[in-house]
Amino acid sequence: MPKILIKEQEHKIEVPILLTAVSGKIRIKNRSIINEYGTPVAVRRDGFTLSNYVEWQIGYDVVKKEVDKLAESSLPHTEFIGANGKIKALYELSEYIWYFYKWDIISKEELKGVINYLNLIPNNNLIGNNSELQIDRSYPIEKNINGFDFEYTQVKYPLLIHKFNGYEIVTEIKITEKQYAVGIQPMLYLCFPITELKSQNNLIGRTADIKEIANFEITKNNIGVFLEMLKMFGILSNSHRHDILQIINTILE
Amino acid sequence: MPKILIKEQEHKIEVPILLTAVSGKIRIKNRSIINEYGTPVAVRRDGFTLSNYVEWQIGYDVVKKEVDKLAESSLPHTEFIGANGKIKALYELSEYIWYFYKWDIISKEELKGVINYLNLIPNNNLIGNNSELQIDRSYPIEKNINGFDFEYTQVKYPLLIHKFNGYEIVTEIKITEKQYAVGIQPMLYLCFPITELKSQNNLIGRTADIKEIANFEITKNNIGVFLEMLKMFGILSNSHRHDILQIINTILE
Repeated sequence: MPKILIKEQEHKIEVPILLTAVSGKIRIKNRSIINEYGTPVAVRRDGFTLSNYVEWQIGYDVVKKEVDKLAESSLPHTEFIGANGKIKALYELSEYIWYFYKWDIISKEELKGVINYLNLIPNNNLIGNNSELQIDRSYPIEKNINGFDFEYTQVKYPLLIHKFNGYEIVTEIKITEKQYAVGIQPMLYLCFPITELKSQNNLIGRTADIKEIANFEITKNNIGVFLEMLKMFGILSNSHRHDILQIINTILE
Repeated sequence: MPKILIKEQEHKIEVPILLTAVSGKIRIKNRSIINEYGTPVAVRRDGFTLSNYVEWQIGYDVVKKEVDKLAESSLPHTEFIGANGKIKALYELSEYIWYFYKWDIISKEELKGVINYLNLIPNNNLIGNNSELQIDRSYPIEKNINGFDFEYTQVKYPLLIHKFNGYEIVTEIKITEKQYAVGIQPMLYLCFPITELKSQNNLIGRTADIKEIANFEITKNNIGVFLEMLKMFGILSNSHRHDILQIINTILE
């Protein structure tokens, strides 16, 4: 991803969003009216419509050994130790919070409030440990389809959607299987309509240019949403909580 | 993937399976006793156990323009036009059928039987068009978690498992969202216990070597399973049926 632009004077961060990415952490998707379920859009072929939104699997850290990714952080000198024992720097979400704290828009009390909030949540209430938020699998039933005997089951994944009051920004928490272990992992996605993006030429009704980029602006008007997101990351699992607490301490130092 | 080894004299095909791949079409997974749900295994770290199996998203074609992948086919000169209009060659599943037909182990009548079977299935009975096999999403309910208001829904994906009588081979058909369109796509996976693999050193109880490969042997004893899989591919969707019919005609030519 291209580097963010920090406008110190204006207290504004511009995040460049690559509109044409077909893989990676940011995708342009379309929300169907019928079931609200997002499907990726081929913006170079089909163009942008009002029902398009940005789905961004926002991060908050970068492992310092991953040099290429570290170069994307504007704060490569920052440092904390993650729940996995790796040395990490602030990145994306935690980067934005760092600047707005430095600019006195986020206060020390607000950050300490997040620490207190996270410390008071019992382990069992963290989303990854919540017995009501597990992946279900229905009991198999026999189904003959075109002469083949099948066992038919449904695998059921929980999806949590939080709407930030007064904003067009939504977070989706998807619960999926862990990649290399038994158990589940919650993944947090930030979603907002493409109309929130700043572009030199209006996006709606046209196709995307090659590697076209538009900007998402973080200002004092919406940084509160990102602070809430930091809290929300902290309730995903024990590891996430550990990381978020370390990050806030790093910012407060 | 390394190239298959065709043993003309013995009427045997050896398919090399890269055991350490962490992405790609072949993964080593572990089946939990509790829910039968497979999770990937870090075989370099955790080693092999009896409950491990190979999950192989087996293919049946290669687009001829994709030169690197075409080089993996032992039949790059074969040719048919896919449902997407692209010129393709036989690959993997269709390659194996080609050889066993040439070796007179699969008969012309068997292949014509598959054609007749597929032609008789009404469009609505193809798995992708089957109204009982769609992705469900439960009606959202309000859920407050640690002070955050969420809408909670379950997204339900159908899974079909077929066991081949008398074999340790299973096929799983997973129904997922299409990547660039509204709608669903069925994906077929072939699964078998790692004990079916031929390796110079017994796998169970040890970790994998760097880029270790073991062989899966296709012989007259199990080619029938692959012929059944060809039929099963043909009932996945209209495009798959088109492709499988073209493939059989190419083999019979």
